[in-house]
Amino acid sequence: MAGNSFGKLLTLTTFGESHGEAIGGILEGCPAGIDLNFDFIQNELDRRKPGQSAIVTQRKESDEVQFLSGIFEGKTTGAPIGFIIPNANQKSADYAHLANAFRPSHADFTYEKKYGHRDYRGGGRSSARETASRVVGGAIAKQIIKDVQINAFVSSVGSIFIDKPYQTLDFSKIESNPVRCPDTESAQKMEELIRSIRKEGDTIGGTITCVIQNVPIGWGEPVFDKLHAQLGKAMLSINAVKGFEFGSGFCGAQMKGSEHNDLIQPDGTTSTNLSGGIQGGISNGMDIYFRVAFKPVATIMQTQTTINNVGEVVSIEGKGRHDPCVVPRAVPIVEAMAALVLADFYLIQNSYQK
Amino acid sequence: MAGNSFGKLLTLTTFGESHGEAIGGILEGCPAGIDLNFDFIQNELDRRKPGQSAIVTQRKESDEVQFLSGIFEGKTTGAPIGFIIPNANQKSADYAHLANAFRPSHADFTYEKKYGHRDYRGGGRSSARETASRVVGGAIAKQIIKDVQINAFVSSVGSIFIDKPYQTLDFSKIESNPVRCPDTESAQKMEELIRSIRKEGDTIGGTITCVIQNVPIGWGEPVFDKLHAQLGKAMLSINAVKGFEFGSGFCGAQMKGSEHNDLIQPDGTTSTNLSGGIQGGISNGMDIYFRVAFKPVATIMQTQTTINNVGEVVSIEGKGRHDPCVVPRAVPIVEAMAALVLADFYLIQNSYQK
Amino acid sequence: MAGNSFGKLLTLTTFGESHGEAIGGILEGCPAGIDLNFDFIQNELDRRKPGQSAIVTQRKESDEVQFLSGIFEGKTTGAPIGFIIPNANQKSADYAHLANAFRPSHADFTYEKKYGHRDYRGGGRSSARETASRVVGGAIAKQIIKDVQINAFVSSVGSIFIDKPYQTLDFSKIESNPVRCPDTESAQKMEELIRSIRKEGDTIGGTITCVIQNVPIGWGEPVFDKLHAQLGKAMLSINAVKGFEFGSGFCGAQMKGSEHNDLIQPDGTTSTNLSGGIQGGISNGMDIYFRVAFKPVATIMQTQTTINNVGEVVSIEGKGRHDPCVVPRAVPIVEAMAALVLADFYLIQNSYQK
Amino acid sequence: MAGNSFGKLLTLTTFGESHGEAIGGILEGCPAGIDLNFDFIQNELDRRKPGQSAIVTQRKESDEVQFLSGIFEGKTTGAPIGFIIPNANQKSADYAHLANAFRPSHADFTYEKKYGHRDYRGGGRSSARETASRVVGGAIAKQIIKDVQINAFVSSVGSIFIDKPYQTLDFSKIESNPVRCPDTESAQKMEELIRSIRKEGDTIGGTITCVIQNVPIGWGEPVFDKLHAQLGKAMLSINAVKGFEFGSGFCGAQMKGSEHNDLIQPDGTTSTNLSGGIQGGISNGMDIYFRVAFKPVATIMQTQTTINNVGEVVSIEGKGRHDPCVVPRAVPIVEAMAALVLADFYLIQNSYQK
Repeated sequence: MAGNSFGKLLTLTTFGESHGEAIGGILEGCPAGIDLNFDFIQNELDRRKPGQSAIVTQRKESDEVQFLSGIFEGKTTGAPIGFIIPNANQKSADYAHLANAFRPSHADFTYEKKYGHRDYRGGGRSSARETASRVVGGAIAKQIIKDVQINAFVSSVGSIFIDKPYQTLDFSKIESNPVRCPDTESAQKMEELIRSIRKEGDTIGGTITCVIQNVPIGWGEPVFDKLHAQLGKAMLSINAVKGFEFGSGFCGAQMKGSEHNDLIQPDGTTSTNLSGGIQGGISNGMDIYFRVAFKPVATIMQTQTTINNVGEVVSIEGKGRHDPCVVPRAVPIVEAMAALVLADFYLIQNSYQK
Repeated sequence: MAGNSFGKLLTLTTFGESHGEAIGGILEGCPAGIDLNFDFIQNELDRRKPGQSAIVTQRKESDEVQFLSGIFEGKTTGAPIGFIIPNANQKSADYAHLANAFRPSHADFTYEKKYGHRDYRGGGRSSARETASRVVGGAIAKQIIKDVQINAFVSSVGSIFIDKPYQTLDFSKIESNPVRCPDTESAQKMEELIRSIRKEGDTIGGTITCVIQNVPIGWGEPVFDKLHAQLGKAMLSINAVKGFEFGSGFCGAQMKGSEHNDLIQPDGTTSTNLSGGIQGGISNGMDIYFRVAFKPVATIMQTQTTINNVGEVVSIEGKGRHDPCVVPRAVPIVEAMAALVLADFYLIQNSYQK
Repeated sequence: MAGNSFGKLLTLTTFGESHGEAIGGILEGCPAGIDLNFDFIQNELDRRKPGQSAIVTQRKESDEVQFLSGIFEGKTTGAPIGFIIPNANQKSADYAHLANAFRPSHADFTYEKKYGHRDYRGGGRSSARETASRVVGGAIAKQIIKDVQINAFVSSVGSIFIDKPYQTLDFSKIESNPVRCPDTESAQKMEELIRSIRKEGDTIGGTITCVIQNVPIGWGEPVFDKLHAQLGKAMLSINAVKGFEFGSGFCGAQMKGSEHNDLIQPDGTTSTNLSGGIQGGISNGMDIYFRVAFKPVATIMQTQTTINNVGEVVSIEGKGRHDPCVVPRAVPIVEAMAALVLADFYLIQNSYQK
Repeated sequence: MAGNSFGKLLTLTTFGESHGEAIGGILEGCPAGIDLNFDFIQNELDRRKPGQSAIVTQRKESDEVQFLSGIFEGKTTGAPIGFIIPNANQKSADYAHLANAFRPSHADFTYEKKYGHRDYRGGGRSSARETASRVVGGAIAKQIIKDVQINAFVSSVGSIFIDKPYQTLDFSKIESNPVRCPDTESAQKMEELIRSIRKEGDTIGGTITCVIQNVPIGWGEPVFDKLHAQLGKAMLSINAVKGFEFGSGFCGAQMKGSEHNDLIQPDGTTSTNLSGGIQGGISNGMDIYFRVAFKPVATIMQTQTTINNVGEVVSIEGKGRHDPCVVPRAVPIVEAMAALVLADFYLIQNSYQK
């Protein structure tokens, strides 16, 4: 299995299955001398963890990170930061009935065919539990690029959208409700929708918008490693993501050049920002913003027909404790991946500056 | 400048500016013994080249690729394939008036700030001319995975969309019109729109849909290098791209799990395919399909206000020969990048099969 | 800090300092379905561990590896294998007197200058304890390429050399003595030398020879990633290594072509093997053999003059429990790194075979 | 074929066979704004080229490099530098008699077995002609790290050694004789030996010593990417190299710690330098020096017995124009690879400095 590492100079490598002993990772390439705020790191994990509110999965996982290396007297030493998050409270029994069935729209079928030998307890490596390690890496990455502000929030659940430009939103309200939507009115509707969906035993999709502010001009690399290409890959690698757009996005594809061009003003800023803060793959100093689409969670509390690993048709019923809607808990994951991308480009940019 | 290489085992590295002597690249990791079809490669380049129809830029560039290595007696030797495409017919004079001005929504400003020393003739490395090298690499990649069919086509121009599922389209008609839209009726409307936009001296955005068929189960890697994450990065790295979605995409974010799940049938196929042929980052044997959003070309034949490199406000007027709409010529680029991604995952998958 | 990962498809990333909570690593890219022999892995660790005999350091470290992921029901799943080796019995107090002094020929000075913020307890990341993680990775790599035999042994200590071609040695005797030298007579002399050196409070260098048998024709990649270049890097990355030669090595540099050429026989083998089993960077089916030079351990039980971190001249005296000669314990490390190199090239070779 | 790229941030990728149309490469990651000295680059190529003196091969190759990108008005732009060196004067007919025979101690046999499809004219990718591209890359790398002095020279031919410490040599004399040996007396003996060996139709091995001065403290990365490990890989990847040692090297393996330790003086320098300027994989500010062993050239002007590609025993006779001794021409190649390694570590070091 390839694909467990992310980043060029700041590299996060993760390991771990949802039902093994622990998950964790190694963050390599962190500069020395950073005074880490460990409460902040744990708080980021808490934003992602199950059981944090009434509208997410009621699994209780403590998600306490233990750092094993790379830190001395509270500061990074430059050495790789190894960390683990022990798996507690896995109810493998919840999955026993699935041992041989391929759950629809999960990775069971593809893993079984690709690897032959599959850990059927909770999705193994394809479990979204893996993203806890990303949150740890991202929480450190945020501290590498302290001057950059990264704010992600839920911008839609089902067909309920925030219908306001992000500039009118108060990001300090993101954490004020369990949906993580800074528009209080929309947040309430979204929460109601999620509650009602859960009662149906169903799930619902949504989108997350992320706004990144105060990025200096010049981050990102041309051609294949454009800043938005790497952000896109980062977001698309998160479980359940189906789409990514930045700046004008898919709407931009309906526009004319005369409407879409961002005119440059004497101070180097642009009068509009349909470019989303990136030109030619490189940050131009304006806000970077993008939107990420999440499908509805595949595990539903309804009966579905599928096959098992010997090709027999079987019925499965959702059990276990799952999220009716993934976006509230995905907000810190989106931020973490954005932070990893940006901190990496920051280091690469340093290389060529002297 | 980092970011000029793409792929892990099959790696394309490109070089070249639009107004230098040549562009080109090195394709490394191509298996030995492949009987290359050179007409096919040139034909792919011709699909991308300027001047091919009345609705694209009228620049005449021959875009003839010269292979310098890695091929012996018509077959690949396994050695890196070096190639160049000489730059002919560059009218650098067309750009003389821009030497010091930053064109809106181009990379002029960010390149100048990042590198200090910029080739102002035609965008240098940020020019879409670079994508000709990708088309060469992709045309070889297609021959590595011959059983896979990759068909991209224009699915919208401005607000004219093909309103039909791709399954009802006849891909053999893609090349039958200059727009590269397999739906003849839509194609005609799109062409008219592009002609009218060009008369206004303006440009227009659009989308490309790509359908990949006959991919075996098991390609793609979990976690960070998911098949769709790498496809997304590949597409987002193409000039002018603003968004990427696969399978149900952004629409999926409005759906319920009970609607969205693809039930698995006794033969291992799924009854629906909202997953877009990928589960857990790994191909499941169903069609892979995705959609890419392109912004309108930034160079318009209208007067725009901007600044120059000493911060003075200046007016610029579009000159030169530019595309009113980029999507017809971007179709082979989308296919090329898809082919590079898939052939790379094919090789990685081989590594673990024995 | 870069440089904590090794390998392209089979990638070992390690973390951990000698005096932190644990060291460990992630082995990524291991094929699925391998029935792991855990006793073998622990046994490899035991061959490296301190305190195993009278002629090595008397530190007692249990070096018990705990696997956290990538293994299910005793078999590899293809997922990354995360593991930790808790640090026990670190006597940080042994190093307290060194907190500010730069030990001669250690990495104290360069780490301090490079990172500013240094963990002075036992060398931090530069400690040879890191190699325990390599032994774990190598022990798994050996099980990926089960048909390949890798035998390393001590071929010299100080000026005592085995003066016999490796073909005349009985590798089954390597583990029969604490020096790990298959020539019993030499082994005894080496052991005596090490005991006498230790009494002097001094240390002594040595060499390890490694013989790799049964490698199929075709492993290794031309140009920069030649099989011997990667083996060389692997060996030179081991603590205390000062030189690497393969096949005829430095002796070959004194020979004539007519003496040095290995004539190819009708069965494809060569009559001599001065090439060391590698031609053009690719295995030719003959034995691969190489020799690695280790300097004497820098920590000696004698008084030395040095400076501290404010530039004052200070005297330091060796304390703690150190090896008088590193080569007996380095044998499994050499084998581990060789196994990681070979298993990686095996996977790469698979990619292109179909 | 993997393995045609070298370096992490400064990456050289090469292509080309000795008997194709051209060889060349792409140097990626070069900082912008470097005022290139093109005469210097060509001069480095001339130091490597055939036919430069009476003691090297009499093939005449012009080896003129053409730069295709990445340079504007004489300065690097930061974009990848694409370059080609056209192949002229290939006498493929010289190789016709070898079409089916495997030359002893060449890569013919291993390439044929690995790739099936082989370019038999002159070794294809395994030809040392590939190293001309490295010299171009290295000549640019030297200009990235202008303050660093890299001097390589021939330190032995056959059993004729310079028996003096490098500190007593006058590097300005290296180019004063065709052997590239700064000790005039030794140079004369070496030249005589090479002439006599050539008369016998034979070849002879030798060693090159390289001394690198003025490297700041802190270059190189711990663990797997130690400065000397990467230098070792770089050197071992050069054709015909059989061994690498730095600092005390293989001699160090016979020494005691009390003799070997480099005591640190109040000014941070060391009183001796058996470490070879590197501690823990990181430069310590002292001279870096290493020695590289080259085997005798495998092509000899004598009759040898071998097999052809259908397993028949055949006789071959050396034809063509080959070097009786490779080391004089390998001096600039050693320097080039050293420069590539150092410039890469310089860029990586920059990343973490702020």
